[in-house]
Amino acid sequence: MTLGKWQRVTEWPLTVLALVFLLAYSWEVLARTHVSLCETTINVIWIVFIIDYVVSISLAHDKKTWFKNNLLLLISIMLPIFRPLRLLRLVAVLNVLNRTSGMAVRGRITLYVCSSVILLIYVGSLAELDVERNAPGTTITDFGKAIWWAFVTTTTVGYGDMSPVTWQGKCIAVGLMIAGIALISVITATLASWIVDRVGDEADKRANETESETTRLRNNVAELTDTVNRLRDDIAKLRESPTVRDDGR
Amino acid sequence: MTLGKWQRVTEWPLTVLALVFLLAYSWEVLARTHVSLCETTINVIWIVFIIDYVVSISLAHDKKTWFKNNLLLLISIMLPIFRPLRLLRLVAVLNVLNRTSGMAVRGRITLYVCSSVILLIYVGSLAELDVERNAPGTTITDFGKAIWWAFVTTTTVGYGDMSPVTWQGKCIAVGLMIAGIALISVITATLASWIVDRVGDEADKRANETESETTRLRNNVAELTDTVNRLRDDIAKLRESPTVRDDGR
Amino acid sequence: MTLGKWQRVTEWPLTVLALVFLLAYSWEVLARTHVSLCETTINVIWIVFIIDYVVSISLAHDKKTWFKNNLLLLISIMLPIFRPLRLLRLVAVLNVLNRTSGMAVRGRITLYVCSSVILLIYVGSLAELDVERNAPGTTITDFGKAIWWAFVTTTTVGYGDMSPVTWQGKCIAVGLMIAGIALISVITATLASWIVDRVGDEADKRANETESETTRLRNNVAELTDTVNRLRDDIAKLRESPTVRDDGR
Amino acid sequence: MTLGKWQRVTEWPLTVLALVFLLAYSWEVLARTHVSLCETTINVIWIVFIIDYVVSISLAHDKKTWFKNNLLLLISIMLPIFRPLRLLRLVAVLNVLNRTSGMAVRGRITLYVCSSVILLIYVGSLAELDVERNAPGTTITDFGKAIWWAFVTTTTVGYGDMSPVTWQGKCIAVGLMIAGIALISVITATLASWIVDRVGDEADKRANETESETTRLRNNVAELTDTVNRLRDDIAKLRESPTVRDDGR
Repeated sequence: MTLGKWQRVTEWPLTVLALVFLLAYSWEVLARTHVSLCETTINVIWIVFIIDYVVSISLAHDKKTWFKNNLLLLISIMLPIFRPLRLLRLVAVLNVLNRTSGMAVRGRITLYVCSSVILLIYVGSLAELDVERNAPGTTITDFGKAIWWAFVTTTTVGYGDMSPVTWQGKCIAVGLMIAGIALISVITATLASWIVDRVGDEADKRANETESETTRLRNNVAELTDTVNRLRDDIAKLRESPTVRDDGR
Repeated sequence: MTLGKWQRVTEWPLTVLALVFLLAYSWEVLARTHVSLCETTINVIWIVFIIDYVVSISLAHDKKTWFKNNLLLLISIMLPIFRPLRLLRLVAVLNVLNRTSGMAVRGRITLYVCSSVILLIYVGSLAELDVERNAPGTTITDFGKAIWWAFVTTTTVGYGDMSPVTWQGKCIAVGLMIAGIALISVITATLASWIVDRVGDEADKRANETESETTRLRNNVAELTDTVNRLRDDIAKLRESPTVRDDGR
Repeated sequence: MTLGKWQRVTEWPLTVLALVFLLAYSWEVLARTHVSLCETTINVIWIVFIIDYVVSISLAHDKKTWFKNNLLLLISIMLPIFRPLRLLRLVAVLNVLNRTSGMAVRGRITLYVCSSVILLIYVGSLAELDVERNAPGTTITDFGKAIWWAFVTTTTVGYGDMSPVTWQGKCIAVGLMIAGIALISVITATLASWIVDRVGDEADKRANETESETTRLRNNVAELTDTVNRLRDDIAKLRESPTVRDDGR
Repeated sequence: MTLGKWQRVTEWPLTVLALVFLLAYSWEVLARTHVSLCETTINVIWIVFIIDYVVSISLAHDKKTWFKNNLLLLISIMLPIFRPLRLLRLVAVLNVLNRTSGMAVRGRITLYVCSSVILLIYVGSLAELDVERNAPGTTITDFGKAIWWAFVTTTTVGYGDMSPVTWQGKCIAVGLMIAGIALISVITATLASWIVDRVGDEADKRANETESETTRLRNNVAELTDTVNRLRDDIAKLRESPTVRDDGR
């Protein structure tokens, strides 16, 4: 069995599991009931993800490259603090959906980044709430505040009315800040590309004129070829005619 | 009646109504007198906007696409909290003015974005003041402070000397933050496009040289065609001359 | 006398006056001695700037366009609060220096923006200190703090350890924020243009290959022309030879 | 001995010394034991760096240009407060490693900037902790807080839960802010270049079609050349045939 086949077979089950993971994690943090059930679910899904990781790396041809490309996956599996990263698999779904939709590059990037950022803000808020809620001196005490804090952080506004006090909360904050910079960068870059294209339309028109210049040149050569061909016919007649004249003499 | 005709007919009346809406809303929030008159005006305009929405969607050929493209319009009509969004219609006016002015792409984008941001900061301050003014523990107590807060938020500076405490105020803040990121992105992208163009002038010159290379090639072919034509004449003379010679013999 | 000649004649004297203005303003705000002397100097320079404005607009051919393009100048002359804007004339000097230096577009933009930002941070700090120093509840009490605040604002970091409390101070802050966004935008845009160029080197090489393709085509046409010319000679010989044969018979 | 040779010879020893400098500096700030040993190490390395500076400038052909290009180096050697800048030499190592690796422009820029930023955040935190730790009213009291503060500053979030109170700390903060703006700019610019390329793939395809247009034109000319050559053969035969006819008569 190849890695590609394994990934195609496990794609949808793992996505569903990531969704269940998201629900269990949300339930555990927000409702704080049936915590043991949620924990069990999360742990079972964790084991499945570990199995998927081990099978994937054993099926990979170039284990070293695969290991390097999937370092984030390893981190999300090994370190409990980074377990929300497992939800990045949900972003991979978007990838699947996009592959079929035939959208333009810019549209796909925009959709991809917006979805990732929304997911990240939601999961970041959950995780932040989870680690900060009971810390002494905390300001992030309910989910509404956590979402607000996540927005203030991701947009790099940073009022400072709330800020994490635990080191785990600070790690999550750094993650959101980096995500925010990535978000601003991607939006700016996509817009820049769009404006360059819009402005470039005029340049394109000029390029078309160059093309038509080439076309005109081609027509010239075609005409010339015609002339030479007719010339050839003339010569051919010239060659024949003396013979005819010879014969007819 | 088609959707296009409906839009052309209602464009100016609806813009005027949006302006009246802006005045009534400003009056209500800032002066706090004749509140019931302002509310009545806002509600009447609201009903007109609902009628416009219903007529527009019933006239649209592809109702699904129209619905998707006008989701923001629906939100501004359905949710009272988002009613300031109805003023986006004023930005549409700019669109009309620009269509006729024949400005360059970059100039139009800049004008469009600057106007939107100024409108957004004004309306955002109004709305923020409206929802925050009477909240316990608020720091945004008059219009000057609200405008200051809106600038601090939109530019993503975020001193934190004032920050919203109500969830509606936080929603407005998130809107302004996103607008700020959009603003920075558009300015950067427009500038990038401009610099790329400026630097690209040299590249353009080289492109012109390539064009002249094509032109020179074309001249070569033209010369060649001339030569071949003269050759043809020579051949023609050659064909005639033996005949002449024959006759003259 | 034309506007252009007036500007060339007054360029250096006005720049020197702007520099004297900067010194007098700095002295007044920082040292707080000889205040009346500084004020007199500033007022005399102000009158000179008003005279320059009146003469310039009366010399301008298209008064309306000139008025629109120099709105900032009018504001800096009319409103005492915006008088530090008169120092923008110092940035104009840079313009002069650059015109002669033959720098590349990107280098000139970078130098221009960096100088403007440094000048803006210095003047912004001075003006902020001037208006905030004696306000009740102020946090900006000396020049060091004002400079620090100006950097925190311009880079859009916004710690909030200091923030303006007067409305004039807030106006200056908004100016610095906008300058900060402009700074980030220009740096990003310049870098983007540079990277696009660097990456584009490869594309350029391909373009050169296309050019050599055109060159090869040109060589082909040249060869063909040679062949046709030799052909013409052959025909010419052919025409002559029968005549010679005729004569020699 | 030339400057180039000197630099090649001293490259690795100086890099190792910079690393030792980093270790000694970290040890001194974090562990606060063997401080005098660390200080001695730092001072010895400092003397070596001064010697390198003096030798380099005396070997340089164009001393003025070299002086201008190495102003940062001079500052890091002259002013004890900026001594962490000496570690920029470590970034130069990356330069060496990259030169051999044949990475693409964008990859190299990304690697370079990320490494510089990580180094800068680490060293900035160290230096900040060093100068702020014992200041009255400080909030940056341990390395964890310093790292957190450095991230909050570099990403321009600026919560304000911690901010420097000493002027040295503020200088370091300004450095980190500028680095943060550079970071955002480089990421955005690299992304923009990447997106422009991706979107440009379609344009490239069109360019290829133009190329094939040229190729087709070339084929046309080649065909024409063939025709003309055959024509030449015909004429040659024509010239010979009368002779043959003459002979055969």
